[in-house]
Amino acid sequence: MPDADRPRFDILGIGNAIVDVLAPVDDAFIRRHDMRKGGMTLIDGARAEEIYAAMPPAQETSGGSAANTCAVAAGLGASVAYFGRVADDQLGAVFRHDIGAAGVHFPTAPLLGAQPTARCMILVTPDGQRTMNTYLGACVAFGTAQLDEAVIADSAVTYMEGYLFDEPAAQAAFIRAAQLAHQAGRQVSITLSDAFCVDRHRAAFRDLVRNHIDILFANEAEICSLYECNALADAVAQARADVKLAAVTRSEDGSLILRGSETVAVPAAPAQVVDTTGAGDAYAAGFLAAYTAGRGLEACGRLGSLAAAEIISHFGARLQRDLRPEAAALG
Amino acid sequence: MPDADRPRFDILGIGNAIVDVLAPVDDAFIRRHDMRKGGMTLIDGARAEEIYAAMPPAQETSGGSAANTCAVAAGLGASVAYFGRVADDQLGAVFRHDIGAAGVHFPTAPLLGAQPTARCMILVTPDGQRTMNTYLGACVAFGTAQLDEAVIADSAVTYMEGYLFDEPAAQAAFIRAAQLAHQAGRQVSITLSDAFCVDRHRAAFRDLVRNHIDILFANEAEICSLYECNALADAVAQARADVKLAAVTRSEDGSLILRGSETVAVPAAPAQVVDTTGAGDAYAAGFLAAYTAGRGLEACGRLGSLAAAEIISHFGARLQRDLRPEAAALG
Repeated sequence: MPDADRPRFDILGIGNAIVDVLAPVDDAFIRRHDMRKGGMTLIDGARAEEIYAAMPPAQETSGGSAANTCAVAAGLGASVAYFGRVADDQLGAVFRHDIGAAGVHFPTAPLLGAQPTARCMILVTPDGQRTMNTYLGACVAFGTAQLDEAVIADSAVTYMEGYLFDEPAAQAAFIRAAQLAHQAGRQVSITLSDAFCVDRHRAAFRDLVRNHIDILFANEAEICSLYECNALADAVAQARADVKLAAVTRSEDGSLILRGSETVAVPAAPAQVVDTTGAGDAYAAGFLAAYTAGRGLEACGRLGSLAAAEIISHFGARLQRDLRPEAAALG
Repeated sequence: MPDADRPRFDILGIGNAIVDVLAPVDDAFIRRHDMRKGGMTLIDGARAEEIYAAMPPAQETSGGSAANTCAVAAGLGASVAYFGRVADDQLGAVFRHDIGAAGVHFPTAPLLGAQPTARCMILVTPDGQRTMNTYLGACVAFGTAQLDEAVIADSAVTYMEGYLFDEPAAQAAFIRAAQLAHQAGRQVSITLSDAFCVDRHRAAFRDLVRNHIDILFANEAEICSLYECNALADAVAQARADVKLAAVTRSEDGSLILRGSETVAVPAAPAQVVDTTGAGDAYAAGFLAAYTAGRGLEACGRLGSLAAAEIISHFGARLQRDLRPEAAALG
């Protein structure tokens, strides 16, 4: 029996298990290939082949939004688990190795003999912006069968990425995971991931956020898309009514943390921007690592900012520096 | 019919086609796993699993000694081809993409349904040294059947890596490639790669160098191993007699270029050392790019130093910066 007061995991992430294929390109490459700069586009296998054939030599690292959050949170000292679907192939083995070596418990069985492990071709322009092209592969085979109920019940916060909230099976799995977490007296969190993703499934997202989410992460575009507002203040007012706690990230302007009528504004940490891939994921990692350690809202936001600053200062979305001394110095 | 005066390729590289799996570790990791620090050790599949399971989260990039040389030389503006064996798997597709995207012609067909693509687990210690553990996989299926004779005849310099000179089939392929190149009026070059590799096959290496090689690349330890000399001067004297041209790399002390009785000493270019993986490969790339462009020995050495300095200033063995403006400024 899990002890409701001392769960085994601080954070359980659920998301698309993806290997990133990162390369630097110029802006002309983005235009020439009709990509939406700064966004995430879902692509099929044929388009994936086409983009890969055109792109420069790359480096491969494990990615996936919630998986990045999990790896960073574990690097900050949190106890973390992750559910996501890879295939039984070489890239799946890379993903499994990397998240395990980061200290994250990853019980999800691989998909056998069907789609390959997902990959995301991430093109980084000289301004540090990333443009993502995701071939989901094995990720689409995620459903309620992949929910390890004991792990959900034994995690303080179940954190899900909006990117996965696309296929009906995954949407059903999200709602089931939220129900299981709440039945065990735990909290449920989501990141909206992408304004276009919210746009495709707005009604379902609105229902999910209002009825199943305790802690909401979003950037300005995403939260405005969710509530169909032009002004951030209007979206913020609606979020206060829907969820207990929300964190709205605002790039170099830091973040706003909302709880009831309370608002905490937290500045961004200084950084030399090389590649913004994973900035939001790292913010959520820092926030949740502090939150599940019982810290106050300002400390949550500051650890989020610190983690995001580390991630954007280099290529790739996982920590390259041990942030625990700096995290401890935040007090 | 190839035109002997204007070959299609400046450089043809032949070597082990490998995907690198790079991660930072501390010195204790190297000791705990009984590794020879700074060296390259061939490992079997079981040992590869064991090391991978123990190592931290990694990044994957295409590697292979001669393949690195080819990619860097192409980045410097040389026209380049490469022969090496990958498998028909995901890592093989990564290797094929990266070398093609670097501008290198890579005609070798993949190995089907047998060993997987080779990988090299490269552990980088805080002093920037790399310790390599190579599982050769599909590379061992390289033989004379993989020699595209038209490409050899159409390449100014055929450059081979000593690492591949291990299996009997590969040794036969090296000698055959050298014969084909010489029949077409071309030159043949080798890098000795590793003192322990030379040690395992010293007699065969000595015969190869004396009878088939025009341009020799080696570091101090490798050339001393080849000639079983304690003093570099003695090894250098023997190399002068064996080959028309030799370049001996000496890390931060730069390189010595030997031709007949002539000696040109070239300093290292300044660099902040992050990861020495591929330093020798990059030196050979710069040297051969200048050499096949008809430049003098000092210019060859200086372009070698420049390329090596770029490579050791970051993780990974392929260029991350366009060196052509600096190369042009060398005069």
